[in-house]
Amino acid sequence: MTRTVVESKTKTVTIGFDEPFCVIGERINPTGRKKLATELEAGEFSTVEKDALEQVACGAMVLDVNAGVVYNSNPDPNQTEPPLMTRMIELVQGLVDAPLCIDSSVPGALEAGLEAAEGRPLLNSVTGEEERLEVVLPLVRKYNVPVVAISNDDTGISEDPDVRFEVARKIVERAADHGIPASDIVVDPLVMPVGAMATAGRQVFALVRKLREELGVNTTCGASNISFGLPNRHGINSAFLPMAIGAGMTSAIMNPVRPVEMEAIRAANMLMNHDPNGGAWINFSRVLDQVNSGTPFPEASRVSAPPAGGRSGRRGGRRRG
Amino acid sequence: MTRTVVESKTKTVTIGFDEPFCVIGERINPTGRKKLATELEAGEFSTVEKDALEQVACGAMVLDVNAGVVYNSNPDPNQTEPPLMTRMIELVQGLVDAPLCIDSSVPGALEAGLEAAEGRPLLNSVTGEEERLEVVLPLVRKYNVPVVAISNDDTGISEDPDVRFEVARKIVERAADHGIPASDIVVDPLVMPVGAMATAGRQVFALVRKLREELGVNTTCGASNISFGLPNRHGINSAFLPMAIGAGMTSAIMNPVRPVEMEAIRAANMLMNHDPNGGAWINFSRVLDQVNSGTPFPEASRVSAPPAGGRSGRRGGRRRG
Repeated sequence: MTRTVVESKTKTVTIGFDEPFCVIGERINPTGRKKLATELEAGEFSTVEKDALEQVACGAMVLDVNAGVVYNSNPDPNQTEPPLMTRMIELVQGLVDAPLCIDSSVPGALEAGLEAAEGRPLLNSVTGEEERLEVVLPLVRKYNVPVVAISNDDTGISEDPDVRFEVARKIVERAADHGIPASDIVVDPLVMPVGAMATAGRQVFALVRKLREELGVNTTCGASNISFGLPNRHGINSAFLPMAIGAGMTSAIMNPVRPVEMEAIRAANMLMNHDPNGGAWINFSRVLDQVNSGTPFPEASRVSAPPAGGRSGRRGGRRRG
Repeated sequence: MTRTVVESKTKTVTIGFDEPFCVIGERINPTGRKKLATELEAGEFSTVEKDALEQVACGAMVLDVNAGVVYNSNPDPNQTEPPLMTRMIELVQGLVDAPLCIDSSVPGALEAGLEAAEGRPLLNSVTGEEERLEVVLPLVRKYNVPVVAISNDDTGISEDPDVRFEVARKIVERAADHGIPASDIVVDPLVMPVGAMATAGRQVFALVRKLREELGVNTTCGASNISFGLPNRHGINSAFLPMAIGAGMTSAIMNPVRPVEMEAIRAANMLMNHDPNGGAWINFSRVLDQVNSGTPFPEASRVSAPPAGGRSGRRGGRRRG
């Protein structure tokens, strides 16, 4: 039974086949958020603080932290992103007890995040690209952390799911060469927009099942990509998530401040027997009652909802390799 | 590729692995609807008419017709139900072009319905009970119609999904003895309430996959049973339906006058590549826009939505065996 253990200083979240679906909050990311990017360059962190608190209140179990701003004053992210990542990680882990996911394309920012984060963060990400494998896997090994593996390589993103499966297999094998177990690899099989590729949904469901059965890995995805370009995206997302969970997907990087999607995940947890007495569902129904009466979701959640999963208290440390 | 063909005089609906999910409207049924029962005994059919039109407008592809009233004036349904079934079938097929599902526990009412229905109706239902097998399968054979097979038998409803699978297998085998192909059997694996049995969801998903792979049959269920006793039932139902569809379920007997559940099914159709250009989803999104602006769902549907599936024009007749 594959278990990927992610930890903060005080909290353990297990991504696994027999665990509630792990919601990784995506909001702390300046990509496409110009206002946040400007704030970060100015050393202003109020939006980060708000996003951290709201996402955890709404049920995020892990928070992604991305510091990918290109400063107007200095266009080299290799210089600017590592110290910003350090500052953001320190800020967020001082505010909430959720484990973190350190998200960067800049190797120096990944390492800065690994140095700053307490516990056992998730690293985001390695790909099948040779250069990336050579840079990221040693960090994964050195800091003994789990890593998101995105199934593209030097040839790009294949539309053929068999090719994406083989890229995932290559990453798992290369990780093994570094002494990293498959249980510390969380594969993102890449979700295409179903509006552009009609087979996109079925591809993901089949890939998730195969990744789980043949490679024994946990999986994740950027869930909202499935509905890109379509009207009423929440409707597509909130059918996709239960279907992906039914196929065996164990986590997603997504916006948890959306009651429709979170409702779908809570219901799917119950239907997968990952909410055995329905306690989480019943509590969440109280939150929805308040949302339907006009209370904003984060506020309703803060009052009524216990966390979607995870346990307080650490059960193990991070060893450095 | 299993295809179960259901027809009205003018319309063919195919239940199948590569077809949009078949929504069988459950509303025309006096069970638990005291007002409707009273109307039916009084020969008053306005609710039946309204239910027929609304369900088809909202996306029902087949309409279940159940005449199971126990009259105050005559407590023997064997006398009263057959003529009522005839009248209801004639009424409904005069109003809408959707194929019908003839639903009764009274053999005389099943046969009355079969005599009255044009096209190739679905018969609801046979079980694994010996007496029921002996009465219903000859009717299925005689009228050359498909039949819903419910997986309980003379020992009752087993909580063990393996037992329910074996009941389904027995029905398929007995049907074969009567010359009835598996493609004309639509198995209901029986959905238990997940609030009472935590494994209920996983049982259904596993059973549907097994029924499809090992017996090659289409499947159906009383979908709303999954959420019985829980708060916010629509939330559970609208995660259950996509998960069941992802597992391979091909139809459900349900209330189609519910935008949340119908949205989940439309989204799942698109994610299963059963709505290849997204046309049905885009049209349905327009209906939802109107519903969100306050228009009742049946009314919004009548203006904007094409049917969820099915084709006009018959492609084959019903032979009598």
